[in-house]
Amino acid sequence: MPIKTVKNAAGRFVPLEINGQPVIPFKGVGKHKPGGRKYAPPVPTCSDYPDDGNKVVSTLEEALRKCGLCDGMTISTHHHLRDGDLVSNKIFELASAMGTKGLVWFPSASFPCNDPVIRYLDDGTVNRIEGSMNGPLGRYVSEGKMEGTAVLRSHGGRVQAIQDGEVKIDIAVLAAPSADPFGNAKGTGGPSACGVIGYAKADYMYASKVIVVTDNLVDFPCFPMEIEGTYVDYVVVVDKIGIPDKIVSGTTQITRSPDRLLIADLTASFLEKSGILKDGITMQAGAGGTSLAIAVFVHEILKNKGWKSKFGFGGSTKYMVKMLEEGQMGYILDAQVFDLDSVRSIEENVNHIPYPVFNAYNYHSYQHDGYNDSWCY
Amino acid sequence: MPIKTVKNAAGRFVPLEINGQPVIPFKGVGKHKPGGRKYAPPVPTCSDYPDDGNKVVSTLEEALRKCGLCDGMTISTHHHLRDGDLVSNKIFELASAMGTKGLVWFPSASFPCNDPVIRYLDDGTVNRIEGSMNGPLGRYVSEGKMEGTAVLRSHGGRVQAIQDGEVKIDIAVLAAPSADPFGNAKGTGGPSACGVIGYAKADYMYASKVIVVTDNLVDFPCFPMEIEGTYVDYVVVVDKIGIPDKIVSGTTQITRSPDRLLIADLTASFLEKSGILKDGITMQAGAGGTSLAIAVFVHEILKNKGWKSKFGFGGSTKYMVKMLEEGQMGYILDAQVFDLDSVRSIEENVNHIPYPVFNAYNYHSYQHDGYNDSWCY
Repeated sequence: MPIKTVKNAAGRFVPLEINGQPVIPFKGVGKHKPGGRKYAPPVPTCSDYPDDGNKVVSTLEEALRKCGLCDGMTISTHHHLRDGDLVSNKIFELASAMGTKGLVWFPSASFPCNDPVIRYLDDGTVNRIEGSMNGPLGRYVSEGKMEGTAVLRSHGGRVQAIQDGEVKIDIAVLAAPSADPFGNAKGTGGPSACGVIGYAKADYMYASKVIVVTDNLVDFPCFPMEIEGTYVDYVVVVDKIGIPDKIVSGTTQITRSPDRLLIADLTASFLEKSGILKDGITMQAGAGGTSLAIAVFVHEILKNKGWKSKFGFGGSTKYMVKMLEEGQMGYILDAQVFDLDSVRSIEENVNHIPYPVFNAYNYHSYQHDGYNDSWCY
Repeated sequence: MPIKTVKNAAGRFVPLEINGQPVIPFKGVGKHKPGGRKYAPPVPTCSDYPDDGNKVVSTLEEALRKCGLCDGMTISTHHHLRDGDLVSNKIFELASAMGTKGLVWFPSASFPCNDPVIRYLDDGTVNRIEGSMNGPLGRYVSEGKMEGTAVLRSHGGRVQAIQDGEVKIDIAVLAAPSADPFGNAKGTGGPSACGVIGYAKADYMYASKVIVVTDNLVDFPCFPMEIEGTYVDYVVVVDKIGIPDKIVSGTTQITRSPDRLLIADLTASFLEKSGILKDGITMQAGAGGTSLAIAVFVHEILKNKGWKSKFGFGGSTKYMVKMLEEGQMGYILDAQVFDLDSVRSIEENVNHIPYPVFNAYNYHSYQHDGYNDSWCY
């Protein structure tokens, strides 16, 4: 059956329905006025939970069963463990063994380590992925082998879709480098520290059921509570949630290419001479080789001029941490941590602050662009 | 018209309807299983807010008008400024001048300084108070002079009622000792520091509109973000939100009565000898004179035995702060701060942690009693 499409404000032909759900074609920047109310997850009650607050269950399988895992459910995960993630595949391995069919996997991103999910797309355990799909997984999808239609949202679009109920999460399975038995959890500490786990915020607030999976159970209170235990149903303790070497991003090496270094130098110089770069600026830096080189050049300019960036918005890298530590940056507000220097920084430095994408990028909130995009590179 | 009542599980005759809304008689501890979903406030959009993220408007009146203040709305406030609160009365003074009628005032508590609200109950601006009512305000209500029926909820019952939509907050007006132009706010800093403002959490998350009122506008980011700016509509800067002397509680003086001191001594001794008080205990201490004396005696026992309390749950006082600072307490989790030593402590000490009642006392969440009531006195 041919898909019915309409032309959106960007001139593209887009469907009005995806995976059986209505979607709204792009109307132009700021043109869409959402109506209605935020999504409302079910009301739970303390009387269904242990009096002593200990929500630890023996295995992820037990937790999934207690959450009522069944056909067609939407399972969300975050991507803070990146290519070292040992939790996501396990969910679908278990679901497949339990005979569950037609699940929707809703990660905040997927990585090469998630290629084994192809097996569970093949055997019908997973109907589709709504999230990023690269490498073999991306190829599989591009070749039309996935039963459902892939949906890729921006990070901000993802949390907005959760908040507004466009995606209803049945079970959020959230890996946590540290967690207490009540379910409070954070991105630091333990053998699989990834710095922050702020991508999990919309998931734990709006999911019907929340499972925290950790390899580092700590005494209550696990603080800062990036995941608030009040929203958590079950805590599972496993041997390992991640492979430390692979948790830090592979894209945090500064470029050595002379061409790219020249581009970076010229960009930084342009920022300075155009007046875009100035005292009190706020900034964001990516994790690619050229971007990082720009950060280094920008840092030099700030130092030479005696300027200070008000804050940098992470993904954080050692180059931003250096600005913070050497006094050329007031704060890092951090949505994800890209390397081990940044993991150390967020553990030690009170001015390196976890800041979830839910708070930073959700267009359906009382937000703005002003603080985030003074300039980005 | 006589009120129709039924006998609840505690043997009391209670109405089935209050202020035109159905209510559920007490069924026994843990017997009520809530159905349905949490309350869902309207979906906002960034396109309605300034691009630069600056939500400051000139006056509280302007903010109330922009929020669409009209007859019958529910206006919430928190009580962290206690008897020094200069904001709550102002709301109803303005509403009265604007000719608004039939408002519901929904504070987390009221204090003697709020007696002037009687004027606005008299002139019809306010239909009723749903919150604590003491002194002249309490007398006024007891004498049947208030048009609507008073409703007093426990702190936990209040946040549960907000979450579940039993009370729908139209406008939350939240005083904040420090706030940035985006609306992030906290209880420390500035001339009206009250330590924490965690009673505001359910309010800002579930209200249709949120106004932050501060006398200490700070640069973004105001951290820790006890109020998250993403939920805030308007920020109002005024000369004074509170009278510092009156912000700290009047009930934090230790008793000097020999009888009460004896009671305190015997209580502490009982706790020790019965084995209730032990190493690793969690505790909560009130702010009355006798309770505080018990805290002092308990502290002595902990010191002598070489024991350490895992954490204390605040309302914090200098006696709890002393336990923290001298090493007999691991953390203070703090829902409200009762004196200036505690305000100082929460500013300085990373182990003195803001912990909203929404996270601590909400029976309709994945909570428990275990961590909070190991023993209370």
